[in-house]
Amino acid sequence: MKILLIGASGTIGQAVAKALATDHEVIAANYSGEGFKVDIGNPESIRALLARVGKVDAIVSTAGLANFSPLSEFTDADYQLALNNKLMGQINLMRLGREYLNQDGSVTLTSGVLSREPMPGSGVISMANGALESYVKASALELDAIRFNVVAPVFVKETMAMMGMDTEGGLSADDTAKAYLAAVTGAMHGQTLDAPDYV
Amino acid sequence: MKILLIGASGTIGQAVAKALATDHEVIAANYSGEGFKVDIGNPESIRALLARVGKVDAIVSTAGLANFSPLSEFTDADYQLALNNKLMGQINLMRLGREYLNQDGSVTLTSGVLSREPMPGSGVISMANGALESYVKASALELDAIRFNVVAPVFVKETMAMMGMDTEGGLSADDTAKAYLAAVTGAMHGQTLDAPDYV
Ligand SMILES: NC(=O)c1ccc[n+]([C@@H]2O[C@H](COP(=O)([O-])OP(=O)(O)OC[C@H]3O[C@@H](n4cnc5c(N)ncnc54)[C@H](OP(=O)(O)O)[C@@H]3O)[C@@H](O)[C@H]2O)c1
Ligand SMILES: NC(=O)c1ccc[n+]([C@@H]2O[C@H](COP(=O)([O-])OP(=O)(O)OC[C@H]3O[C@@H](n4cnc5c(N)ncnc54)[C@H](OP(=O)(O)O)[C@@H]3O)[C@@H](O)[C@H]2O)c1
Repeated sequence: MKILLIGASGTIGQAVAKALATDHEVIAANYSGEGFKVDIGNPESIRALLARVGKVDAIVSTAGLANFSPLSEFTDADYQLALNNKLMGQINLMRLGREYLNQDGSVTLTSGVLSREPMPGSGVISMANGALESYVKASALELDAIRFNVVAPVFVKETMAMMGMDTEGGLSADDTAKAYLAAVTGAMHGQTLDAPDYV
Repeated sequence: MKILLIGASGTIGQAVAKALATDHEVIAANYSGEGFKVDIGNPESIRALLARVGKVDAIVSTAGLANFSPLSEFTDADYQLALNNKLMGQINLMRLGREYLNQDGSVTLTSGVLSREPMPGSGVISMANGALESYVKASALELDAIRFNVVAPVFVKETMAMMGMDTEGGLSADDTAKAYLAAVTGAMHGQTLDAPDYV
């Protein structure tokens, strides 16, 4: 398969690129890093990326910005970033990308378990994740030419280490990547794939 | 209790106003109807409403706009209406309204079961509902002075009749209102109240 991976240079994205590259051709896109450049917060930028890359068999997003913050300190801009980037940025990858998918193609996005298991500071991230999971479930009812799923990672051990946290309870990026491989190569549609279930 | 009800003239709102009015003082706010005027899509309008109404014991929203449409026909404007009005409009009622709540006050918003039980055409509504339910659960972790909940109605019989649908499987507006009464008078916090559970 030819797979467009947006967010390929990230902590999760690098592991997903490695997992997919064993059997597939991975086309990497990032905001500023190597490969194709794209800003998912800007639909024109997504359109330009898709036009340059052309037809693919799968689109995978391991991108999506949203901030942690104490609830009382979230600004309007924090809400808008989550809605415009993590939520609509990824939704627009499906809306605009479905035209570029070969038969039996798929789109896989990234939410996070904070939709259902929140923690203090996750208000705006939980909001975006919950929106993504419900949207994928709903819109899959009307998508019959492509499969559409979302992976919900738990805290990634590498991210926790970077933040100086105890990595207990986290999942390594390589283990997290297994859920993306399952979503791309499996038959599921309209599902939220909880990353720990695919290790 | 003194209760500010936004969306009081709506199908659900009228029934909620009636249910609350038995034991409480209800202050009605609507977009164009009777009582105080407010546009929840505009934070300045919410601020003005709150300043005019002053301190209350509870804020209840039975407002929130979002469109049904075949997935392929949703426009950018449909996504923005759901995010700006149904989602952020209601979230801003909590963000701005919490300052106006008396001790042990509460905020109750409205999502809908389409977050978890979608139907064709509900993509954007499901998205907003899922966002609301996850946001309420998450932010309640950091709200200790007020309670914060969301009611998830199923299809209301009166709405179904208005749309020429069979009302089987729907819940009357009066029965739907019972979940709001439970949220305002009960002890729950951070919960999604599925309306059929409170009949
Ligand atoms: N890490 C975790 O513990 C964890 C847990 C649960 C969920 N998640 C979710 O998983 C996703 C990836 O997380 P991560 O930790 O791997 O992130 P990361 O290391 O920060 O990497 C983010 C990736 O997205 C790209 N990117 C940033 N802004 C972009 C934009 N506007 N348009 C397109 N691409 C953009 C980055 O490109 P450049 O490098 O070029 O900037 C990078 O490739 C996020 O949605 C995150 O919320 C992560
Ligand atoms: N009815 C159902 O079957 C059903 C099922 C599940 C969920 N819900 C949800 O329940 C909520 C109420 O539904 P409903 O059927 O009762 O709605 P409705 O009959 O259309 O009433 C909407 C109410 O909200 C007010 N409103 C409209 N735009 C507003 C704005 N920008 N700012 C402030 N208030 C505004 C209206 O005021 P004016 O009359 O002055 O315009 C009216 O009081 C919605 O969030 C809906 O998604 C409904």
